[in-house]
Amino acid sequence: MKKATRQQTKVHNRNLVLHTIINNESVSRAEIARITSLTKTTVSDIVADLLEEGLIAEIGVGESLGGKNPILLSLLPDSRCLLGLDLAHNQFQGAIVNLRGQIQKKASLPVNDRDGNEALALVYEILDQLIPGCNLPLVGIGVGTPGLVNTRDGVVVDAVNLDWHDFPLAQLLKDRYHLPVYILNDSQAAAIGEYTYGKGHIAESSLVVIHVHHGIGSGIVINGHLFQGDGGGAGEIGHVVVVSEGGLLCRCGNRGCLETVASAQAIVRRIRTLANESYSNSWQDPAHKITLDEVERAYNLGDPLALQVVSESARYMGLAISGLVGILNIHEIVLSGDMTSFGRPWLDTIVDTMQHTSLSRSVQDTRVEFGQLGANAVILGSTAVMANNYSLLFTGQPTQAEFTYQ
Amino acid sequence: MKKATRQQTKVHNRNLVLHTIINNESVSRAEIARITSLTKTTVSDIVADLLEEGLIAEIGVGESLGGKNPILLSLLPDSRCLLGLDLAHNQFQGAIVNLRGQIQKKASLPVNDRDGNEALALVYEILDQLIPGCNLPLVGIGVGTPGLVNTRDGVVVDAVNLDWHDFPLAQLLKDRYHLPVYILNDSQAAAIGEYTYGKGHIAESSLVVIHVHHGIGSGIVINGHLFQGDGGGAGEIGHVVVVSEGGLLCRCGNRGCLETVASAQAIVRRIRTLANESYSNSWQDPAHKITLDEVERAYNLGDPLALQVVSESARYMGLAISGLVGILNIHEIVLSGDMTSFGRPWLDTIVDTMQHTSLSRSVQDTRVEFGQLGANAVILGSTAVMANNYSLLFTGQPTQAEFTYQ
Repeated sequence: MKKATRQQTKVHNRNLVLHTIINNESVSRAEIARITSLTKTTVSDIVADLLEEGLIAEIGVGESLGGKNPILLSLLPDSRCLLGLDLAHNQFQGAIVNLRGQIQKKASLPVNDRDGNEALALVYEILDQLIPGCNLPLVGIGVGTPGLVNTRDGVVVDAVNLDWHDFPLAQLLKDRYHLPVYILNDSQAAAIGEYTYGKGHIAESSLVVIHVHHGIGSGIVINGHLFQGDGGGAGEIGHVVVVSEGGLLCRCGNRGCLETVASAQAIVRRIRTLANESYSNSWQDPAHKITLDEVERAYNLGDPLALQVVSESARYMGLAISGLVGILNIHEIVLSGDMTSFGRPWLDTIVDTMQHTSLSRSVQDTRVEFGQLGANAVILGSTAVMANNYSLLFTGQPTQAEFTYQ
Repeated sequence: MKKATRQQTKVHNRNLVLHTIINNESVSRAEIARITSLTKTTVSDIVADLLEEGLIAEIGVGESLGGKNPILLSLLPDSRCLLGLDLAHNQFQGAIVNLRGQIQKKASLPVNDRDGNEALALVYEILDQLIPGCNLPLVGIGVGTPGLVNTRDGVVVDAVNLDWHDFPLAQLLKDRYHLPVYILNDSQAAAIGEYTYGKGHIAESSLVVIHVHHGIGSGIVINGHLFQGDGGGAGEIGHVVVVSEGGLLCRCGNRGCLETVASAQAIVRRIRTLANESYSNSWQDPAHKITLDEVERAYNLGDPLALQVVSESARYMGLAISGLVGILNIHEIVLSGDMTSFGRPWLDTIVDTMQHTSLSRSVQDTRVEFGQLGANAVILGSTAVMANNYSLLFTGQPTQAEFTYQ
């Protein structure tokens, strides 16, 4: 508990006004004063600053409530640009995004198993491609990466596939681009993305986004804030043990982790094994390298092997989500990532298993749905952390380097 | 985001001063002003009110820092009393507690399988016994009960053993005793108790208390606040499925829940079954009703059957805690409840299993320890919610009925 200083109050009030404008399509000064309980003079002064900053504009007049018609104010979404990156398994992707989470320009580069400094060079390459396309004040760079991230220090603590360990990614990017940089775990970024730009979330609500791609992770938003836990690793659902006896060996060294049975990688591996065993006709050349796309096509054509393997994986997902819902009791669960391309039957099996392995009172109000942002969830989440950090949006202000989530 | 009104600011400042006094053994007015950033005049006015309320006292003089020696202020822990109840499986327990969580008087009554209105009568009986022993202003009644609780409305949504469903316990107690009443799930109460009165917690830190007794539940404290989830049921670890194939039927209707293999009830049942099967000599009359106390005695004497069953149960606990740590990444895990009487070997097996079924980076900083409050954790937690709600402590103030956790 602390008393606010005068400067803190000033920043708080300014952010409060901006928040009100961002959360309303259009709003008058008088309405802002009513919503925020600030005086009309304070609101007018702040609005003048925001107009000068070019962050908002007067967009017309509203209906009169007795006196003269009030002037309506609105955010100018294209007054700033933000850079977001998703360091996904096979393909690094980046985009220029505006203040409403609209993607202006995208770029992507195949990874081809590059790691270490070669992976870093790829990050530079994608940023070098995108930055010249940004003709507005650039707020900063957000990066969603697999692995454990220390968001406060901008360090990738451990990302096995990229061979990054205690890797100071934020500092490297700051040194090269002289911009604020935010590093987030990819699943946590997807959660912030879906919370901020996915539809239908009540303000200050909670949700969990489960990101099922090459690996499996999740991001937890509690009362509108990303929850990262004491070590930054909250939401690590991929290594929850779901096969209690005789599970497969996981890359983490344990056996029976969710990732060994429900990730995109696990499904491809399982199909390969079973196709080899059965010499199934549907997989004409079981020796060739089966991909997730092929599994998806076979699945959509009703191939029995694909149906069986995907359905098994969904049951394990349901079991893991059941445990997560029991512990968190958060009613909104969102699925994102490659595996969502298996569509409604995959989702239905997950929900069915969850309902049959949970206390009914825990799951009766729980909704499990697909995300709204598709393949852009991580990119949009990595930029949302900046768009939500209003102090960063002011060109005349010293950069507030501190990460404000959590 | 909201601007504070003048009245809210006044209450906030008063609570800020009281908070500072409570969190320091003794403190001067000048130190309070420095810590809180409030003006000396504001602090002096508030301190005068607190002295008049009898909540604090001037207890001596401190060292001079140049001028005259400052008068030191301290909380008067025995200026108020609080009533706490733990509606534990076999035995309802209650206590009169002071503002520092010290128990002044206890009472307990055997339940003997009573439920419904008979269980309510038992609650009345225990309160009727305790209340006359309370000669100071009584702040309110806190109750920790098994089952799902709607804390805001004070309703026990579902407590199977007590046969309470949508049971308005708070209103019933308010009508009878005309006092503020707080109803909490027992594991959540234990968590608040250990957080508030257990030693060694950093302010605003997070911890999970796993309460292993007749059933199994947990309470999650995040940044100093009880996290209850969207439906009040957060921390429901007892019905996480840990036996993925061929698990026992649980009272919840599912199979393989943690409660079926790791609760006190599960252990007693398992010993009974195995003793019957093996006609083991250590359990001379396998037909008689074996109790947890007997299992504990046998365990301490090295009985192989007891060792085997308790160790199995600890492995399942470790597996469930591993999942919880993966999701929450909270570094402090506290075990409370009857099962803690199996002591260090039980704890060591739990920790060992957790470490071997978690990502090493998730658990490397995780501490699993016994609680500090023993059998009083639930009682002390149910009173802590009132002791921490400073507005309740003012005799001249209208009661703030709203529950302020979460």
